[in-house]
Amino acid sequence: MSLTIKVNLISPTHLNSCNKPSCFFTAYNPRIRPKPIYHSNRLTTTSTSLKPRRMQGPVRSPSVIKSSLIEPDGGIVVDLVVPESERGTKTVEAESMPKVRLTKIDVEWVHVICEGWASPLKGFMREDEYLQSLHFNSLRMKDGSIVNMSLPIVLAIDDATKESIGSSSNVGLVGPDGHLVAILRSIEIYKHNKEERIARTWGTTAPGLPYVEEAIASAGNWLIGGDLEVLKPIKYNDGLDHYRLSPKQLRKEFDRRKADAVFAFQLRNPVHNGHALLMNDTRRRLLEKGFKNPILLLHPLGGFTKADDVPLDVRMEQHSKVLQDGVLDPETTIVSIFPSPMHYAGPTEVQWHAKTRINAGANFYIVGRDPAGMGHPTEKRDLYDPDHGKKVLSMAPGLEKLDILPFRVAAYDTVAKKMAFFDPSRAKDFLFISGTKMRTYARTGENPPDDFMSPGGWEVLVNITRVCKQRRQQSKRLLYLLSSTQLHFAASLL
Amino acid sequence: MSLTIKVNLISPTHLNSCNKPSCFFTAYNPRIRPKPIYHSNRLTTTSTSLKPRRMQGPVRSPSVIKSSLIEPDGGIVVDLVVPESERGTKTVEAESMPKVRLTKIDVEWVHVICEGWASPLKGFMREDEYLQSLHFNSLRMKDGSIVNMSLPIVLAIDDATKESIGSSSNVGLVGPDGHLVAILRSIEIYKHNKEERIARTWGTTAPGLPYVEEAIASAGNWLIGGDLEVLKPIKYNDGLDHYRLSPKQLRKEFDRRKADAVFAFQLRNPVHNGHALLMNDTRRRLLEKGFKNPILLLHPLGGFTKADDVPLDVRMEQHSKVLQDGVLDPETTIVSIFPSPMHYAGPTEVQWHAKTRINAGANFYIVGRDPAGMGHPTEKRDLYDPDHGKKVLSMAPGLEKLDILPFRVAAYDTVAKKMAFFDPSRAKDFLFISGTKMRTYARTGENPPDDFMSPGGWEVLVNITRVCKQRRQQSKRLLYLLSSTQLHFAASLL
Repeated sequence: MSLTIKVNLISPTHLNSCNKPSCFFTAYNPRIRPKPIYHSNRLTTTSTSLKPRRMQGPVRSPSVIKSSLIEPDGGIVVDLVVPESERGTKTVEAESMPKVRLTKIDVEWVHVICEGWASPLKGFMREDEYLQSLHFNSLRMKDGSIVNMSLPIVLAIDDATKESIGSSSNVGLVGPDGHLVAILRSIEIYKHNKEERIARTWGTTAPGLPYVEEAIASAGNWLIGGDLEVLKPIKYNDGLDHYRLSPKQLRKEFDRRKADAVFAFQLRNPVHNGHALLMNDTRRRLLEKGFKNPILLLHPLGGFTKADDVPLDVRMEQHSKVLQDGVLDPETTIVSIFPSPMHYAGPTEVQWHAKTRINAGANFYIVGRDPAGMGHPTEKRDLYDPDHGKKVLSMAPGLEKLDILPFRVAAYDTVAKKMAFFDPSRAKDFLFISGTKMRTYARTGENPPDDFMSPGGWEVLVNITRVCKQRRQQSKRLLYLLSSTQLHFAASLL
Repeated sequence: MSLTIKVNLISPTHLNSCNKPSCFFTAYNPRIRPKPIYHSNRLTTTSTSLKPRRMQGPVRSPSVIKSSLIEPDGGIVVDLVVPESERGTKTVEAESMPKVRLTKIDVEWVHVICEGWASPLKGFMREDEYLQSLHFNSLRMKDGSIVNMSLPIVLAIDDATKESIGSSSNVGLVGPDGHLVAILRSIEIYKHNKEERIARTWGTTAPGLPYVEEAIASAGNWLIGGDLEVLKPIKYNDGLDHYRLSPKQLRKEFDRRKADAVFAFQLRNPVHNGHALLMNDTRRRLLEKGFKNPILLLHPLGGFTKADDVPLDVRMEQHSKVLQDGVLDPETTIVSIFPSPMHYAGPTEVQWHAKTRINAGANFYIVGRDPAGMGHPTEKRDLYDPDHGKKVLSMAPGLEKLDILPFRVAAYDTVAKKMAFFDPSRAKDFLFISGTKMRTYARTGENPPDDFMSPGGWEVLVNITRVCKQRRQQSKRLLYLLSSTQLHFAASLL
C-alpha cells in the first residue's frame, strides 16, 4: 500500500491544509484497511473478575486465567448502547424530544462514555460530578469509594438551545450530520464558566490551547448533564473502525490470550525504536517478576489531536509496519485505538489516560516524560514541568490499583549505533531526536540514524511528509486562485 | 473605649492610606485590650479523644465530656514550637545556617503551621505535598487515609537566596524585622510555576487578585519546603494576642466548657443581627437535636485581608461590643482569632477554612453564600458561582467527618422591622444590606434600619469610618506636600 493511493482517496473537503488533523482523520477509505493485529472474531466471553496483581507479586497460578486482571472503576464496565431490539422505539421517542446538536468532538465523548472508558460515568457530567472532577480530579461513589476522574466530560449548549429545551427532562443528541445519535435523560443544565474550567484543567488561561480553541472558546455558556443512551454503536467509517475495540472487547481479548499482566502504552506519535526498546524491556521486566504472559496494549489515541500531530490513519499504518517489521511481537501485542479526544492538559490529562486503561483491563501503565504535555502556547517553555505528570499520576486518587511504570528515557546511542536507554555517565554519546527533528529528517529526505525506526515505519512518515508538502503547495495555489476570484468579484461591485 | 484613643496610637508608618489593611492591623497598642470573651487561665488539659458526633445523633451521655469532639487530621494536633529549654541551643544552631527572609504573610503561615491548624502538615510544603494540594485539594497519608489540604502552603525564594543556600539541608527563617523566627530542616527546593499555581488555586489568572498581588506576583521563582521548628511562639504585640488561641487551646477550652457540640463561624466582616440570628438559630437547632451544650466558635480571620476589608482590630472591637450588647451569649460563645491569611479563592479556600476548624475541635461548620468569594477582578460578575462553595465543601475529600451546616440567608424584614430569614414567598418585604451598602450608611452618617446591628457594634463602624475619612484627607495632604517637595528637588537638579 503506498501513500500515493491514499492521497487519491482523500475527500476534496479536506484539501485545504495538509497539516490539519482533519487532513486524513475523517477520510473514508475502504481500500485502506491495515491488517488487524488482533483477531476480534476470536474474542471470548469470560467474565469473572480478579483483584489486581501488583508488580511486586508474580502470578501464583498461571493456569487460572480470569477475564479481568483489574476491576473496572465502579465494579462494572458501563455499556450505554441501546440493545438492537429497542433501537426503533427509542429512536421514535428521541425524535419527539428537544434536540441538542453535537460537534465532532462531542460525538467522540459520546463514544468514550457509552463504551465505558469513563466508568462509572453514565453520561455527560451533572454539576456535582463536574465540580468534583474540576476540584478533586475524582468522584466519590455512594459507598464512599473514590474513582479517578480528572477531565470534565461535559456537553456545552448555547442560550438558544437551553431555551428550546425549556422544562423537558430528556433531549435527543444529534450528530454533525443531522442524524440522531443518543438520548440524554434526566438532564441538568448549569452554568459553563469557561475561564474557571480552563484554568483548573490546564493550569493556564493563555490563548492557543488546542482543545480550548477547538471545543471551548466558542462553545455555549451552559453545560447539560444527564444519563446517556446511545442509539447505535459509534462508527467513523474511516477504514479504522476494526481497530476501535471497546473496554469490554479488550478485556475479552486479554482473556483469550491468557494474559496474566497487561501493560498499556498510550501514544499519539509514530513508534520509534526507543519506544520499542521500552515496551520490550517492560515485558522482560514483567517476565522477570514472575508473570508468564504479559501482553502489551499499544493504544494510540484516536480522537481530536492538534494540527501538527501526525494524523491517526498515518499513525495506524506506521504502527502496522512496525509490527510487520518485527520490532514488536504481534503475538504479545494488541494495537487498538483509544477513542478519546486529546486535551494536552499534562498532569491532569495523564490521569484520564491511565484511568481509562484500568477500565480497559490493563493493570500496568507506562508513563513517559511530560505526558500529555506541549509547549506553552505563549511562552518559550514547556507548559508543564516534564516530571509532574508521573509524580501526579503516582499520587492520584482512584489510581492506587494501577501499577505505574515510569518511562526510562531512550535516545540514539552513537557508539552502539542503536536506540538505547540513556546513560548519564556518557551523556555525550547520546543523540535525542525530538518530534520536530524527526519531521525535519522526513521533510528534507535526510535519513535518521540507522535503527532509529523500523524501515517500513520510516517509509510511511517520509511518504506522508512528501505528500503533505505537495498538498500544501496545491492548497496555496487553490487559495491564490480563490483570492484572485474574490478580488475580481469585489472589484465588480465597485 | 473610643476610636479616638485608638487613632492616636497608630504608628506613623501606617499613616499613608486608611483603607489599607495595614492601617490598624499591625499597630501595637498596649492600651487596647478588648475584654477577653473566654478565660484562658481556666483552660483544662484533658486529652482523651472521641469520634465525631453527627448532626443526626444526639449526645448519649452528656456527663462524659472528652477533650475532642472530632479527631484532628492525622490524629494529633501538630505543635512545632521548640520547648523553652531548647530555644537557646536551637537559636545558636539557626544562626549558623543560610537564611531565608520572610514576608509578613510568610510569618502568618509559620504561625498557622506551627500551631497545627494545617495538621498533619509539619512545615512548608515539599513538592509532593504541593502537587497533591494543587491537583487534588488533599493529601494522602502513609496509612492511605486522606486529609483535606486545598491551599498550597508554600514559601517562595528568589534565585539569589537559592544560590546562597547551596547544598545546605537546613535554613534559618528570618522575620521582616531581622529576627530569627524558625528553622526549616531537610529542605527541598523546587520550581515555583506561578501561573499554574494561580490558575489551579483561583480558577482564573486575571490580574487584581489580592493575595496574588500581595504575595505571589513579585515572589521568587523557587519554593522551599521542609520541616519547621519555630523558635518561640508567634506574637503580633498588637493588643490582640490574647485572642489568638491555638487549636490545642481551643480544644481545651471546649472541654472546660463541657461542650458536646462546637459550631464554627468563619468571618472577616462585622457581625450584624442577621449573622447573630443565624448563629443563635444554629444553637437552637443543635439543642433540638439533643445536644445539651453547643458552643459557638466565632472565629474571625486575622491574617492578610484585602485593602477594603474592615481591619482586624476594628472587627475585634465590634465583635466585643456585639457580645456586650447581648446579641450573642458570652456563656456559649468563644471569640478567637484564626491567624490564617485570606486568599479569596472561593470554593478552594472554604475547604481550608473548614479543615482548620476540624483541627481546632469544631465538629460543625456553618457555610454561607459565596464563601471566601469576591467580585471578579476584571469582569462585572462574582468570581465564583455563589453556590459552588457549599457544594464543593460538601463533597471535599477529607472533610467527611465535619458536619456542614448551610447558611440560611438573612435579610432585613421591613414588615417585622428586624433581621429575619429570607422568605421567598414575600421577597419584596426584605431588604438586603450588602457590605458596600453598610459602608455607605456608616460613611454618610445615615443610620441603617433598626435592629440591623447591635448599637455598640454599629457605633464602632461609624467611628472608624469617620476616622478613616479624616485620615484619608490627612494622607492626601501629606502626599501633596511630598510631591511638591520632590518637584522642588527635581527642579534643583536641572
